Parts: sequence; C-alpha cells; structure tokens
Amino acid sequence: MVAEIATDPKLDALRAQIPAVGRTGYFNAGTNGPLPLPAHDALLAAATTELETGRIVPGVYEGSARRNRRVREVIAGMVGADPLEIALTHSTSEGLSTVLFGLDWRRGDEIVTTSLEHPGLIGPLCLLAHRFGVILRYAHLEHGGGDIVAAIADQISARTRVVAVSHVLWSSGAVLPLAEIAALARRQGAMTVVDAAQAAGQIAVDLHALGVDAYAMAGQKWLCGPEGTGALYVRSDRLADIKPTLLRYAQIDPSGYVIPAPGANRYEIGEFYGPAILAQEAALLWLRDEVGLDWLYARTAAMGRRCWDALDRLNGVSVTTPKHCMAGLVCIQTAGFAPQEMAARLFERGTTIRYVAYPPGPTVARVACAWWNTEDEVDRLVDQVAEIIAEGSQPA
Amino acid sequence: MVAEIATDPKLDALRAQIPAVGRTGYFNAGTNGPLPLPAHDALLAAATTELETGRIVPGVYEGSARRNRRVREVIAGMVGADPLEIALTHSTSEGLSTVLFGLDWRRGDEIVTTSLEHPGLIGPLCLLAHRFGVILRYAHLEHGGGDIVAAIADQISARTRVVAVSHVLWSSGAVLPLAEIAALARRQGAMTVVDAAQAAGQIAVDLHALGVDAYAMAGQKWLCGPEGTGALYVRSDRLADIKPTLLRYAQIDPSGYVIPAPGANRYEIGEFYGPAILAQEAALLWLRDEVGLDWLYARTAAMGRRCWDALDRLNGVSVTTPKHCMAGLVCIQTAGFAPQEMAARLFERGTTIRYVAYPPGPTVARVACAWWNTEDEVDRLVDQVAEIIAEGSQPA
Repeated sequence: MVAEIATDPKLDALRAQIPAVGRTGYFNAGTNGPLPLPAHDALLAAATTELETGRIVPGVYEGSARRNRRVREVIAGMVGADPLEIALTHSTSEGLSTVLFGLDWRRGDEIVTTSLEHPGLIGPLCLLAHRFGVILRYAHLEHGGGDIVAAIADQISARTRVVAVSHVLWSSGAVLPLAEIAALARRQGAMTVVDAAQAAGQIAVDLHALGVDAYAMAGQKWLCGPEGTGALYVRSDRLADIKPTLLRYAQIDPSGYVIPAPGANRYEIGEFYGPAILAQEAALLWLRDEVGLDWLYARTAAMGRRCWDALDRLNGVSVTTPKHCMAGLVCIQTAGFAPQEMAARLFERGTTIRYVAYPPGPTVARVACAWWNTEDEVDRLVDQVAEIIAEGSQPA
Repeated sequence: MVAEIATDPKLDALRAQIPAVGRTGYFNAGTNGPLPLPAHDALLAAATTELETGRIVPGVYEGSARRNRRVREVIAGMVGADPLEIALTHSTSEGLSTVLFGLDWRRGDEIVTTSLEHPGLIGPLCLLAHRFGVILRYAHLEHGGGDIVAAIADQISARTRVVAVSHVLWSSGAVLPLAEIAALARRQGAMTVVDAAQAAGQIAVDLHALGVDAYAMAGQKWLCGPEGTGALYVRSDRLADIKPTLLRYAQIDPSGYVIPAPGANRYEIGEFYGPAILAQEAALLWLRDEVGLDWLYARTAAMGRRCWDALDRLNGVSVTTPKHCMAGLVCIQTAGFAPQEMAARLFERGTTIRYVAYPPGPTVARVACAWWNTEDEVDRLVDQVAEIIAEGSQPA
C-alpha cells in the first residue's frame, strides 16, 4: 500500500510538528495524544538546565510559581474560566477525587452517576461508599443515545449531594448535555462534578456557561501534554463547599489554623516535575496559537462524522456512538469479533485505536478521530475494518 | 582564588557524572540534589521515544506497571522494606497527607509532633485540626539537642493516635532517635508517621528495625531524582489502619464495593510522568551501584562533621546542629547577619546553601554537606563564612 499524504498545507505543516502521527494512523487521543515538538523542546531545554546548573539557584521557587500561574491562565482561557478557578493536577482522577474527598459526607448521602463512567470516577465513588456510607445511584444510558437528562433526573432525590458524570463518555463517545444536567442538579441543591478527561481539547468548552461546579481535565489526551498533567476547575463560589484534602503550602498557625491559597490552586497536591509542566504549557500554546482552537474543534468533529458515516455503511459493523451528540470518538461493535481482536489487527495494519472493556459497561472498539487525522487516514481505517471483517475472525 | 579539585579518583569520577556540582559549591541537597547523567540520559531516551513513536503502542500499560514495580523494589532494598510496603508519590508531603487522611478521625483525637517540623507536615496537621477537630501537641525541641524522647513522651496521652515527626529535622539537622520514639508510641497505641524528606539518601535507614508505621521520602533531595518524585513506606500490618483517599485503579463493583491494590501501591495517586520515573530509577541505581550506599552515608557524615568542627571554631558563628546526633546538615546562626544575607553572600562567592526561616521555628543558615562535596569545598565554605563575617553586614 502506498502511503498517502494530506494535501492541506496547514495540516501538513502541523502534522510535521507531531512526529508520532507519521508512524501510525493515530486514532487514540482518547488514551494519549501525540506530543508536539515545541513541548518536547521545552522539556529538553529545562531538563538540560537542571542538569547543568542545578535546581537550587535563587529565584527558582518564584519561577515555578510564575510558571504554574501561566499554565493555569492558558487553561482558564481555553475553557471559559477565571485563572483562580484552575488547579494543576497529575490526572483527571486526581482532580475528581480531590473534589469528592473535599466534601464532608454523611452516611446515606447519595451520588448520581451514569452506567458509562470511567473507573477513574467510579473507583473514587466506590471508595466514598466504603469509607463514608455514600449510596451510588446509576442513570442507565446504554450507549448514551437516549434522554440522558431524564435518566439522571429519575435518580435524583432529596438525598443527592453530587451528580458526577462525564462530559464526553469514554466508552460511547456521546457528549452529554451538561448545562441541562447542571441546572437540574442545582435545582435539587446538588453539585455537578464532571469527568472531562475526554472533553478538554476534543470539544469547545465554556465552563461559566455550562454552570458546572467542578470539571476535571486530562493533560495528556486531547491536549497533547505529558502524562502526569491535568487541570481541575472549581467554580469560584464553591471554594467553601469543597475543602482541600492533601494540602501543599498554605498559611498556617501551628496551633491548628490554616488558610489555604485564595484560589483553586488550594487543591494542588504533590509536586510537579517542572520540565513536564513547561512542556504542557508549550503544547497548550501550540494548540491555541498555531493550530487554533476553533479550527481544531471543527476538524475533530468533521473527522468523527466522516468516520461514523463510513463505518455505518459497513456490513457487520454496529456503530454505537449516538450521531446526534458526538464529536471525535466513534465506538463500534463488530459481529464475530472481540473489540480486542479488531484493535490488534488494525495495529498490525498501521492504524492505532483502542478497545474499551470494563463490564458492566459496553465492550467496544473505539476510534478517536482528531484534527490531525487526514481524510485519507480515516478512509483507510474504514477500509481496513472492512478487510478484517471479510477475512473473518482468526483463532487466538 | 585558584579552583582546587578533589584528588580522590573515585570521587572525581562520580563528580563528573553530576555536572551541577562543577558550577557551585553544592551544599543544598536539603532542597534539591544534583541530577546524575544516567538519570538525564534515561529521561531523554524515554521522552524521545514518546515523541517519535507515540505513547499508545501495545504493552505500554504493562511496561509502566513493571517500571513502577522496579522502582518500588529498588527503594525497598535501600531502606529495609518489602517492595509491597512502598508506594510511589509526587512529594514527601503527599505521602504524609495520604497517611494522615487515611485515618478516620474523631473530634478531640490528638497528634503529637515537634516544634521543628516542616510546613509539609504542619500544613496537613493543621488541615486535620480544621476539618476534623484534631488537637495538635508539640514537643518543644529548641535545636534538637536535648532529650527528644522525653519531650515527646511528655505530650503523649491516651488520646494520642499519631506521633508525627521528622527523621532528620530540616531546620536543625538533628537525627531523631526514631526506634525509641516508635516504641514509645506503640506502647500508647499510637502510630508513628515520619517525615523522611531529609533522611532518605542522607543516612542509612532500616525501616523494619526502626519500627515506624509510615515513612514518607523525597525523591529530589538526597536521592538525586527529578522533582515530583518520592516514595511512601507503610508497614504491611498497617494497611487496615490507613485507608486510601485518592484512589487510582482498583477492583470495583459499581454498587459501591472496592478492593484496592494488595500492597502500599494502593496509596499511589494521580499519574506519573513516565520518563521522570525512569530518571528516578536511574538515579537510584547509580547511587546504589556506582556510588555505593555505605560509602556515601559515611562520606556525607564525614563532610558534615568536618564542616561542623570548622564552623564551630569561627568567632561570630553559633552552630545550632547538635553534634551528637547529626549527619550532613549543619545549621548556623551568625551574629549580626540574617541567614538570608549569609546565604546570598555565599552564593555570590560560588557556594550554594539555603536559609530556613519559618517562625516559630528557628531561623538559620543551613549547609547541606553531601558525599559529593570535596574537603576543599567544605574548607572554602568555612573560609568564605569567616570572610563575610569579617567584612560585616551590609545595608540591604
């Protein structure tokens, strides 16, 4: 097969900045995005300076604080938040857990979530059940194509303190109507806590308009940053509801009094590897200033739609992603094939997707279409799926 | 002044592997150690692979799990622990907080600590006071030269649930008699939780012999790893006492049941930047196999003693570190000089130390002598302190 190349000059130039997309049909931003060269260069420059000059020169703390503030500002600008509403994290799940453990739970308090959530959310919810006697209520969504708000409303009661859902469902690709969900929760006096691992960088986000209370983002997926990066949004009027749990520096009086940082950075925990945060910043600036957010969101959605339409035409393929509320993620089930086998056989052909298999959620093969994918790559992926189905499943 | 060089061939060869020590008299392992070349090389190799081939190739999760297991094993071997008793962390304070928030507190429970602890411990303790009504009791140690066990015993009561202390006090350099403290706490039914930020890599540690319950280590200080690395030891029989708080992957049943990882890795939170963990591993292996742990502990202590003796002979210098229980850290107060000024003027002369100024703890200039320092460097630092005192304090 002759490798085809993209003919859009802008796309060609951008793809040259993300070398990994030249090695495979890169359809797995849902796990990790490709790293852009500016991020790599920032990492190397900082790591080399640390090696050669040490990390203890005067001003290093102030420099780290300024660096973190810049990254919070860039993220805030991308998602319609105030910089004081953003905390840096090491993962989406860390952000979700930080919010959930920042509440004082009473036995019998309820949390409403959905049947399609990632273990990074369900794990912490189960831990709340174990430690504090919280009851979990599930809105059953199948593949997310039905009336999600009604399904959630059915589970809400006077005991509901939190509605915890994804913005984009990892195993279906459905984009949830967050503004309606948040409004529903607010009417019941509950907070809306959002797993945005699949949303940040895949779809346009305006947090103040959505009205959610907390929104936990991943840095390494659609935002193309290093692993171990992420961000947490906490709406400014929720600082009193959500207490810090693992505290870094704060104003303290040793007799037991504490004043945390004035903004959401009070929720930052652990420590960060500085060069990786500089790489995260470089990746975000590259997405914002070189790629362009409006352009990338539109192109990601267009590639998703192209993929959905073409896969839907194949015999033996069931596209489970609801077409009326999707972006780049396209999930399929193939008759006679475990999704694991489909993913493995696509990888042999030079196309990287992943399977999702966390029962009781659905088991699917998931194609993460992103702005960097060419039309040719999408078409080739669909052809490869058709070929694999035509060959038939092979004994493991 | 003509630069003098070390004449020990082993030391010369090792110093060539840590370029930062060629740029300054590197007396600040207490903040960050110098990074060794093998760590830098490991980082670069991994980061370049991620850039070029992507981070989503089959086997990547298994590889990360193996990598983390190897690092836990190396650390366990260095501190006399079982690998299942080690969790990777992003900082000492993260480890301390994880343990402290893993307990179910009752209003009026007491924690005994000392007057010389780092904000990375006191901050979380104050947060426990704020959130759960825990009462903090302080053993007042001045500079740590008196009867520490007696001072702690005086504060212990039937309500004491935790004794939380440093192994090596950051603002005095005193090495605490941990085995005695842990035995005392155990007799009262209390746990011993240790801030080991200044201990791991500075002094030999045998955790099973010490008998402590939890021991939180820093990766970036005396262990010469990247920032954002660390490790937490939890004794195997304390897994039932200390619950996970921020949970990563675990076995879960969505109705609210959870089984965490079988070992202390249940306490790992957030996500790690893989190349930095590989760098941490390389630094640890270099310390263990190239530098040699027995040699480095002995040399660090010898450099500390040499520094202590020479500084103690200077007029106008009060060495506050208790000589009978010290290792590499040497703290001083200088008549007529704020420690901040002493640190700044030493830095101008090519010697890097730091000052510690967290009232109500003592304000001191802190010299962190390590195995990589030459005898000449130690002597030069002492000469520089004498020169600066002779010149007198200068208006800011």
